[in-house]
Amino acid sequence: MSEVEKYYISYNNVHKLCQKTAKEILARNERPDIIIGISGGGLIPARIIRSFLKVKGEKNIPIQAIGLSLYESMGSTGGGEEAIGKEVVRTQWLDFGALKEHFDSLIGKRVLIVDEVDDTRTTLHYAVTELEKEVQHQQKMLNRLDEPTIFSVFVIHNKDKPKKVDLPREMLESGRYLAAETVPDEWLVYPWDAEDIDEHTRLAKLQGHD
Amino acid sequence: MSEVEKYYISYNNVHKLCQKTAKEILARNERPDIIIGISGGGLIPARIIRSFLKVKGEKNIPIQAIGLSLYESMGSTGGGEEAIGKEVVRTQWLDFGALKEHFDSLIGKRVLIVDEVDDTRTTLHYAVTELEKEVQHQQKMLNRLDEPTIFSVFVIHNKDKPKKVDLPREMLESGRYLAAETVPDEWLVYPWDAEDIDEHTRLAKLQGHD
Repeated sequence: MSEVEKYYISYNNVHKLCQKTAKEILARNERPDIIIGISGGGLIPARIIRSFLKVKGEKNIPIQAIGLSLYESMGSTGGGEEAIGKEVVRTQWLDFGALKEHFDSLIGKRVLIVDEVDDTRTTLHYAVTELEKEVQHQQKMLNRLDEPTIFSVFVIHNKDKPKKVDLPREMLESGRYLAAETVPDEWLVYPWDAEDIDEHTRLAKLQGHD
Repeated sequence: MSEVEKYYISYNNVHKLCQKTAKEILARNERPDIIIGISGGGLIPARIIRSFLKVKGEKNIPIQAIGLSLYESMGSTGGGEEAIGKEVVRTQWLDFGALKEHFDSLIGKRVLIVDEVDDTRTTLHYAVTELEKEVQHQQKMLNRLDEPTIFSVFVIHNKDKPKKVDLPREMLESGRYLAAETVPDEWLVYPWDAEDIDEHTRLAKLQGHD
């Protein structure tokens, strides 16, 4: 049976995991000023978690999407994300161009970076490193070095496996790396890829992921 | 009972409506080169419909997010989207900066613009108008006037009501305005806003929106 090797996740399960993590963030008084969803996988959890980070009467937390894809850098075609020689390619980046009045940069903000899964950690590492670099550069340019910018990461699932690269030690140790669930290194089947969503949901329920 | 006035929509229902529309697009041989999700509401349907527009063996269709919000322009606080004096504010715009090798602009592309609901049509009108303007400007600058760019719109729900503004007649008449469902002018409750997703899903099932 190939079914047992796959870990089916329903939409409602994703929803509840986002909701749970939002509660933890609010309990720690760490509501973000901005959510950065890593496209494609981070778009859905980014939008869902926003609902539960919102405080009634206040504006929605803005979402910015950044597009990051892992590409083969050596022309091989097979393999999962684990394959040697993957590199991150940016397909979209931050744009505050139209919003300058309200939001000029990430400087001094609480920033929540969202993706669906932390597999080899390559994409998250790239996102955090590049965003930190950009903020530090802007801080120097604008002489605003005294405004600390605080990055957190939220993923629905962290795969329990050795990572190829790491995240800043300070982020990990201060609890600003938030994985709603840590799961074995299995094949995670997210609902947005399901050809038959009713059957997918049935299997997710059977496995207790609903 | 206030429940009967609300139209509950499950995630699985959203999924099926995206899937259905993707099949229609593929049957017409109109697979987009790029999907533009209007943030926040369009992010989830944009990611879902991408799954079903993908052709096996080919790369994922790139998603770009644009952020558009309707703000009160006259300082009033109450009212729904119908309130007089709403204006569209851009919170994020296209960025091909990092992807220039593969994708320099929208010129000559099939572009699918995605949002969750067409209520007063204000946001969609803004998106289509501004994107068309931008492409025309780029075409002139680059002397590439002979490459037609084809915009389509996909929404999960179109509310059956008078619209404040319209979309290009040619888009509407050629079937490039795709609403998975046309619904009465009721209060649509999307799953990503649900405090209790199990109860929400139960109500959606009762109403046949699952």
